[in-house]
Amino acid sequence: MRSTLVSNNKFSKLNITPKLLLGAGPSNPNPEVLEAMTQPVVGHLDPTFLGIMDDVHEMLKFAFQTSNPMTLPLSGTGTAGMESCILNVVEPGDTVLGIENGYFGHRMIEVAKRSRANIIPLAFEWGKPVELEVIEEALKNNPSINVVLAVHAETSTGVLNPIKDIADLAHKYDSLIVADTVTSLGGVDLQIDNWNIDLSYSVTQKCLGCPPGLAPVTANQASIEKIERRSVPPNTWYYDLLLLQKTYWGATQRTYHHTAPITMIYGLREGLRLLVEEGIEERIQKHTDNCNTLRKGLEIMGLEMLVPEGNNVSSLTTVKIPEKINDQQLRSSLLTNHNIEISAGLGTLSGQVWRIGLMGENSKRENVFRFLEALEIELKAQGMNVSAKEAINQLG
Amino acid sequence: MRSTLVSNNKFSKLNITPKLLLGAGPSNPNPEVLEAMTQPVVGHLDPTFLGIMDDVHEMLKFAFQTSNPMTLPLSGTGTAGMESCILNVVEPGDTVLGIENGYFGHRMIEVAKRSRANIIPLAFEWGKPVELEVIEEALKNNPSINVVLAVHAETSTGVLNPIKDIADLAHKYDSLIVADTVTSLGGVDLQIDNWNIDLSYSVTQKCLGCPPGLAPVTANQASIEKIERRSVPPNTWYYDLLLLQKTYWGATQRTYHHTAPITMIYGLREGLRLLVEEGIEERIQKHTDNCNTLRKGLEIMGLEMLVPEGNNVSSLTTVKIPEKINDQQLRSSLLTNHNIEISAGLGTLSGQVWRIGLMGENSKRENVFRFLEALEIELKAQGMNVSAKEAINQLG
Repeated sequence: MRSTLVSNNKFSKLNITPKLLLGAGPSNPNPEVLEAMTQPVVGHLDPTFLGIMDDVHEMLKFAFQTSNPMTLPLSGTGTAGMESCILNVVEPGDTVLGIENGYFGHRMIEVAKRSRANIIPLAFEWGKPVELEVIEEALKNNPSINVVLAVHAETSTGVLNPIKDIADLAHKYDSLIVADTVTSLGGVDLQIDNWNIDLSYSVTQKCLGCPPGLAPVTANQASIEKIERRSVPPNTWYYDLLLLQKTYWGATQRTYHHTAPITMIYGLREGLRLLVEEGIEERIQKHTDNCNTLRKGLEIMGLEMLVPEGNNVSSLTTVKIPEKINDQQLRSSLLTNHNIEISAGLGTLSGQVWRIGLMGENSKRENVFRFLEALEIELKAQGMNVSAKEAINQLG
Repeated sequence: MRSTLVSNNKFSKLNITPKLLLGAGPSNPNPEVLEAMTQPVVGHLDPTFLGIMDDVHEMLKFAFQTSNPMTLPLSGTGTAGMESCILNVVEPGDTVLGIENGYFGHRMIEVAKRSRANIIPLAFEWGKPVELEVIEEALKNNPSINVVLAVHAETSTGVLNPIKDIADLAHKYDSLIVADTVTSLGGVDLQIDNWNIDLSYSVTQKCLGCPPGLAPVTANQASIEKIERRSVPPNTWYYDLLLLQKTYWGATQRTYHHTAPITMIYGLREGLRLLVEEGIEERIQKHTDNCNTLRKGLEIMGLEMLVPEGNNVSSLTTVKIPEKINDQQLRSSLLTNHNIEISAGLGTLSGQVWRIGLMGENSKRENVFRFLEALEIELKAQGMNVSAKEAINQLG
């Protein structure tokens, strides 16, 4: 006897109010991306799709600024990318230095714990840049370290870490580096090859202007060789990078590994196509300019940045919540009254900061102004006297 | 110095020819599903999205015919579901019986090998049903077995395994069962609670009429208790079922675990809504009827089924490739000349059979006829004299 469980007239079609997503991601996808996702689904071994995979591979290399043959979008979200990179390159017996100055550095350590390696966490204050000399000290004092985990643009704090310098230190002490480039890829200067980053993972729903669902990863020869030398296979079959590359993404004769998320790949292709069309220098400049406009505007309104200029991530701005302002109420009012989403602080910064993203499609001057105007209204509603108009006038 | 790597006018917008996907999946998504996926993206903690998660949870329980509170769509494709179920419930020291009578039973064993448990593979001929007495013998002879892996509808062979009987045997010998319901969920009779299936995983791109990208899973109390008793956490943080349930899918106050693939979830909600609207009995009957029409039509045309009626999967039909017919050429011609995709055999059945899916949206009498007509043309082109018209006339 089967159960009905649900009545068949309870659920109606979705009819969702559009919102301006100025949080830590997802960001609003580009309309062309959503349109591309309505293209007819074809099989994962259809010649048409294989050609699309080639396009995605080539353009992802461009986005990452790499010539790594192993550059592909994993079928999962950003944390899948993190898990795959770490669980492939780290094996039992390894010693891993996990650099943490925010939530995602911490998460890398948590994920690495599943690898049965020896993990050395190195924590800095959240919201502050890492200290290179302390990192070097740790590497010097622990010569068994062979993998370093670090975040480029820390999504929880808005701090941009000197990932090239960290990579140089890692290599100086014979270690590989895994870099989280979730909030930088496609919006913030990132040069995988020039900076000698061994493995990196990112997402589609931030600066690439796509919905969430894929994790672009790239791995260089040194990291592949380490994976090839493993004495036991990685914890994961689904995200086994060598297997995936050998059978499907990197194969001349592609065969079945798993059914690729066809529609998401269409979207990613379009997001990458728009990046190529715009140009990477232009995209980076746009993110910097709009971020600076936002920061100045907020400062004119009397708010204080968490991260000083120069150390900040241009795609994600963290601003301190003014005294006496109710965090939850303000974010909720922005969402309800203005259809604008911003993000709460994470972990130790919860209740301390707001995180405001201007990513990909959303990195626009008009979005900065729309946000400042809405913020004025909601800060005033809580008794704080601010003027967005004045800020906007000064910004010109 | 950044690299350009690609020229910015090389890639044009996608313009993909629609195809009728009668392979092993992906199947053509329902147009309403693709439409739902163009709904505005909102945040993964937006109240609107939390409501959508509730809908998906409730309707997934209906599809699985279960009241399991842990019923959710994992952010990955079907193999992610397989990996998650196995790596969560199996721990080092366990003894696992892996029942294999096809490619996916074999894959379950491969995935389980990553768990550091003791794996006992039990192989039957691909394309033949499993033998329950042999399974019982294995369970009796190996009292340490505490997890059984089995496939319900074997996508590689079209054999429907007696999953309820296998579950009963597993429980008789104090074992849990993990069932692959990839090709059955939403199209073939499947009753998780009535049949006492402990864990199961499936996909969206077959009988649920969505694109690939999510893996619905369900786990009952017995399996959750086994996971809770683990002495070491699962290999995977991203697919750690208890963590995911506790923080996000099953939480009263949902918090961040990973960014859900919003757009895919919209699509799944619509696919499930259409299932609820149609009714599960009706959906199952439709799959049975259209499968029988296809089988009869092929037999009238002189082709031979791999699997006898009664043991066959109604959503996926395997037909033997006639002698002297070139497999690759025929499938390629169907795709190129008729825009119809069917699938090759997998593994030991490669070159022996074709796999023809009539799944979800594609389970339609008119699709059977369109396929038979195209098949006639391409078989004739290879010198085999067949008549689809005669078959269609007889089918009435």
